[in-house]
Amino acid sequence: MAKDNTITFYDLALATGATISPFVWATKYALKHKGFELDVVPGGFTGILERTGGQTERLPAIVDDGKWVLDSWGIVEYLDQTYPDRPALIPHESVATLTRALDAWFWRAAVGPWMRSYCADYRDQCLECDKDYVTTSREIMLGMKLEDMQAGREERLPKISAELEPLRMALRDSPWLGGAAPNYADYRVLGSVLWLASVARTPPLSAEDPLRDWIERGRDLFDGLGRHPGLNTLYGLEPRDGDPEPFMKVGGAAGGIFKRNTGPASTQAETRKITAKA
Amino acid sequence: MAKDNTITFYDLALATGATISPFVWATKYALKHKGFELDVVPGGFTGILERTGGQTERLPAIVDDGKWVLDSWGIVEYLDQTYPDRPALIPHESVATLTRALDAWFWRAAVGPWMRSYCADYRDQCLECDKDYVTTSREIMLGMKLEDMQAGREERLPKISAELEPLRMALRDSPWLGGAAPNYADYRVLGSVLWLASVARTPPLSAEDPLRDWIERGRDLFDGLGRHPGLNTLYGLEPRDGDPEPFMKVGGAAGGIFKRNTGPASTQAETRKITAKA
Repeated sequence: MAKDNTITFYDLALATGATISPFVWATKYALKHKGFELDVVPGGFTGILERTGGQTERLPAIVDDGKWVLDSWGIVEYLDQTYPDRPALIPHESVATLTRALDAWFWRAAVGPWMRSYCADYRDQCLECDKDYVTTSREIMLGMKLEDMQAGREERLPKISAELEPLRMALRDSPWLGGAAPNYADYRVLGSVLWLASVARTPPLSAEDPLRDWIERGRDLFDGLGRHPGLNTLYGLEPRDGDPEPFMKVGGAAGGIFKRNTGPASTQAETRKITAKA
Repeated sequence: MAKDNTITFYDLALATGATISPFVWATKYALKHKGFELDVVPGGFTGILERTGGQTERLPAIVDDGKWVLDSWGIVEYLDQTYPDRPALIPHESVATLTRALDAWFWRAAVGPWMRSYCADYRDQCLECDKDYVTTSREIMLGMKLEDMQAGREERLPKISAELEPLRMALRDSPWLGGAAPNYADYRVLGSVLWLASVARTPPLSAEDPLRDWIERGRDLFDGLGRHPGLNTLYGLEPRDGDPEPFMKVGGAAGGIFKRNTGPASTQAETRKITAKA
């Protein structure tokens, strides 16, 4: 398997050369996590079926010593099954299930709303040959002209950022979603964040966002895999008067469920407050 | 440790006898998962500090052969560390991190909004001696009279149910959040669902909700631990005209990220749609 430790990887990139799809980004990290070198086949949305010899209309796709493997989850399962002696991407089946929940939440809370806020930026940074396809397909998906959909995003961006509290909460006591070291849960969400960096021409996150540390450590992995020069700046969102805070200060609103009860001294301030005793 | 395989468990219950707190429910399941018998100390909110001999103002709390352990996460960590030869509650550190994310999301999307929809029901089912404390503390937390906060819930309940799609998505391909068998991720969310069943005097979920199967299997565990007769019916929510669907039919809106690409035949219908080719 994997001649010269190298796997063929079909990329999906913008005119900047940066990978675009969250799924393709996550797969790139997954291959590196398993210790492989990538033989990258470049390209955009146009001509995937031809480029892959009729194997697939969608990416990611890999070829491992002649064997085609499709689909981001399919590739992860293939890699863990085929190379069990290399670091696991999904170290327990519960990690797969919980990552699906997290990914579904992140998609709903963030990726969808960000897509609607950056859809024209997205098209504008595509390869010239992809622009018609991206415009048509995204306008059908979104049900609106890309420029109209994107308009008014300064109203929406602080709200999207405020929705990310569950991820901030998870990373408050752990360096990675994987625990002491990253695993596919990290790469899956990071893939969407790197998609965001590939399209966002105005920053989606505050410079002080607690997620910044995790994102930047993730970009540093594997000799700076997430540091392509074509990526846009993620930080610098400035809420205007009346906007929600883009992230929760001092523990967050859901702090109650994450505080540790170590005895009465740890709870008496709250008790005084909720029993209205001064 | 654990004389006669029994651990002392401080319960927190309503007048119905049903456990109320999500954290106490989750802990009850955790102890059973580790194979222990429970020596239950009954009681409500009033007098926890006295009942526990000054050890804590909050529950859950357990005593294992004289050793006090507080806090729902603290108890889970204690049980896995002290009894590593019994089934793990948290089989990998990534499961802890991802469960925190899932729990934070569920709290924000569902438990908080349900609390605001059932806060007067909650108080009405408390022990007589707890009613003043519950009224005062919850009115301070919620910033409003309980009856006023609860009013209009028929408007809100279908929307809360519609927000649960990430959990439905995770459980579509797996019997438990833990994978083939339940673990603390299941008990943590199930604890909140059982809290809901303890308070909800009008059903929060549709009879056809795909989560029903997982919830009911969870209630069956450990000789029907989640089948206390004081619990209310969870199913029977009927959306009115104009309400959102309480759950997604046929794969869900986020289906795109969960469909498997197995080659062009699996994607060509979508391709025709998004390229506007009939």
